[in-house]
Amino acid sequence: MDAHIEDIARCEGQTVTLKGWLHNRRSSGKIHFLTLRDGTGFIQAVMSKQTVGEEAFTRADHLGQETSVVVQGVVRADTRAPGGYEIDVTSLEVVGESHDYPITPKEHGVDYLMDRRHLWIRTPRQHAILRVRHEIIDAVRDFFNGRGFILADTPIFTPAACEGTTTLFPVQYFEDTTAYLTQSGQLYNEANAMALGRVYCFGPTFRAEKSKTRRHLTEFWMVEPEMAYATLDDVMELGEALIVAIVERVLERRRTELETLERDVSRLEAVKAPFPRMSYDEAVEILKKEGLPFEWGGDFGGTDETVLSQRFDRPLLVHRFPSAIKAFYMKPDPARPELALGVDFLAPEGYGEVIGGGERLADLDLLLQRIKEHDLPQEAFEWYLDLRRYGTVPHAGFGMGIERTVAWICGLEHIRETVPYPRMLYRLYP
Amino acid sequence: MDAHIEDIARCEGQTVTLKGWLHNRRSSGKIHFLTLRDGTGFIQAVMSKQTVGEEAFTRADHLGQETSVVVQGVVRADTRAPGGYEIDVTSLEVVGESHDYPITPKEHGVDYLMDRRHLWIRTPRQHAILRVRHEIIDAVRDFFNGRGFILADTPIFTPAACEGTTTLFPVQYFEDTTAYLTQSGQLYNEANAMALGRVYCFGPTFRAEKSKTRRHLTEFWMVEPEMAYATLDDVMELGEALIVAIVERVLERRRTELETLERDVSRLEAVKAPFPRMSYDEAVEILKKEGLPFEWGGDFGGTDETVLSQRFDRPLLVHRFPSAIKAFYMKPDPARPELALGVDFLAPEGYGEVIGGGERLADLDLLLQRIKEHDLPQEAFEWYLDLRRYGTVPHAGFGMGIERTVAWICGLEHIRETVPYPRMLYRLYP
Repeated sequence: MDAHIEDIARCEGQTVTLKGWLHNRRSSGKIHFLTLRDGTGFIQAVMSKQTVGEEAFTRADHLGQETSVVVQGVVRADTRAPGGYEIDVTSLEVVGESHDYPITPKEHGVDYLMDRRHLWIRTPRQHAILRVRHEIIDAVRDFFNGRGFILADTPIFTPAACEGTTTLFPVQYFEDTTAYLTQSGQLYNEANAMALGRVYCFGPTFRAEKSKTRRHLTEFWMVEPEMAYATLDDVMELGEALIVAIVERVLERRRTELETLERDVSRLEAVKAPFPRMSYDEAVEILKKEGLPFEWGGDFGGTDETVLSQRFDRPLLVHRFPSAIKAFYMKPDPARPELALGVDFLAPEGYGEVIGGGERLADLDLLLQRIKEHDLPQEAFEWYLDLRRYGTVPHAGFGMGIERTVAWICGLEHIRETVPYPRMLYRLYP
Repeated sequence: MDAHIEDIARCEGQTVTLKGWLHNRRSSGKIHFLTLRDGTGFIQAVMSKQTVGEEAFTRADHLGQETSVVVQGVVRADTRAPGGYEIDVTSLEVVGESHDYPITPKEHGVDYLMDRRHLWIRTPRQHAILRVRHEIIDAVRDFFNGRGFILADTPIFTPAACEGTTTLFPVQYFEDTTAYLTQSGQLYNEANAMALGRVYCFGPTFRAEKSKTRRHLTEFWMVEPEMAYATLDDVMELGEALIVAIVERVLERRRTELETLERDVSRLEAVKAPFPRMSYDEAVEILKKEGLPFEWGGDFGGTDETVLSQRFDRPLLVHRFPSAIKAFYMKPDPARPELALGVDFLAPEGYGEVIGGGERLADLDLLLQRIKEHDLPQEAFEWYLDLRRYGTVPHAGFGMGIERTVAWICGLEHIRETVPYPRMLYRLYP
């Protein structure tokens, strides 16, 4: 019977066929201890000379790491085994050989591993991260679908910049037309929300940032919900509920992976609603008290975010930023027009902003004024202005970066491990 | 109580608040019949002068199409109403005005509508299509997640071409580096399958095709599963099960939308396993008998696909194509090496190929030879060759185009309506 390692508990006492790869091997004189992996997990297979015979035992003497093998054996419960089970091998067939596998159990430098990312992802740690990523994405979709949001994909090729032009990737479209790779589905999301009420987009976004920080990729995935007839408060509630749902789901279904990553799960278990909220004004006061050289009107840097978020055991919501440092489409606070009705969610443990959003400017005249102030070409935004011409409504939404969320949930130092093939300033291969 | 139109059946007899837009309006002397939409549906709201008073009634006399309104009223069952319910209006508040809305209930040309796609998506027909699209995507994810596949995103920026170079979009990456937008996650999927066993990617892909057919977009979404230790037969079974699952889900949850689209659902109800299968050889015989000028060795054109698929009431699987017309990574049939172990799924009713896939070439030497024959730069594929150097295994997978699937399920003549903002040769706005 073909079996997968993740389902092995159901096969106790039975003879199963496992199709996978040899992850590791050590031998005593009469027994090979083979660690097998099949993509769904890792398991120890015990091969004794007595059972398989001299010839088969000797053939297995020289199998290299990552040799692909089909193993038959009997599943045996063993409380000492990491997964609770082992396989007593009755036969082993080599499918594809592997010699001098370049990633050995010893330590390798990051550049070396990144050059071999297609092989690096075969290790237990990378498996765990990618499974948590899978679970986070699934939790996100279940969250929005369960609340009646419609997935409405926004385009990757866009005719104009959404936020600034210096970080855009231009593409030669056809003949003399230039397209830009999307930085956010935001503007299209607004049109979709006017059509479908509550929508989200979920796709790759691109920023040609020349930064080499541990928080930046040039290509990253973002989920962006947008709601008609909604305000800043709705965004804060929705984002909070989303993060709680993600953390609960990962804790429920990916405990094993979090253990592999040696993640302190108590830090995740603390992430419960309500999240602390403070205004930008209050945040500035705290930074000043902490002795940081921060002036009102500036945008938070990584250190500022860390200092603020480290005071709490769950994400911190900072709202009402100076309009001057926020995008042209943000609605000003009627009580203090120099402030924008936006919010950033800062993850705990210094992981920085994972969600940014707020209420959008619904007023046509004010939006026209902002487009001029930001020196944006009005003709490129005519369609967007139509949303204010024909039945404008208060509306709001946010964007959540998947890679930063994965980094936080998994407790990773660097964002490069959060996606199978990270793209960075000097990294386009493999 | 705030309510959404899609949930209105639960609110019978209650006073609800609907937040939406005025889709249409007609009046008798003492009654306004207002069609409201809120993104979740359409409903008729009956506003009588007697109930709301002279002044409020007169204010509603001149509301333009797509005016945003908040309506209070009592939900009343009415068997004559399309959704089974109507609202007896007690009050109406205008949120945002709308004058001279450019898309009226009369007929408009396609170019006119495409220029106003951000507004066109507010119509019942486009709502229905986008909801079916949402449902198809959700069904796809449930299908793979339920079978233990891991979502492993493949990169959009790639250093080399996967299938041919003439249809690639180049991007200036940084300084003197050129990246290409992905045409398929295939090659990366293979590496991911060697790591995680069964994987899928699901993202936008790009083809710089200068074709202006009703089946082509420059940017389209594709789901691509890949399985280690799998063969062509596994691909045929998996693709069949996927399509059956999608069709069942849409029939189960999106009947109303299919009605709006006037889709002949009996055509969808016929889509049950097993699907007919024929070899390329057999397909060529049929085309010749039908009098088409087709020679063995050629690739099917749109007409050929239509002629073949129209013979059946469900998707047709054509397998074992000449290697010469297929990608370099396809495994040759051991019984007849001039054939590739690939399969195309042709949708019924002339919708053409919705799935293409097969078994991959697992042998290092043969793959090296193919890369040379196809004049591809070997150094760009060194990482891909590693998959054959270190524990190669038989593996197989396929790609399914989402937009073509939506077009087929919805019964659309042209693919441009299957996505909120289609991108085509001469279409980049809005």
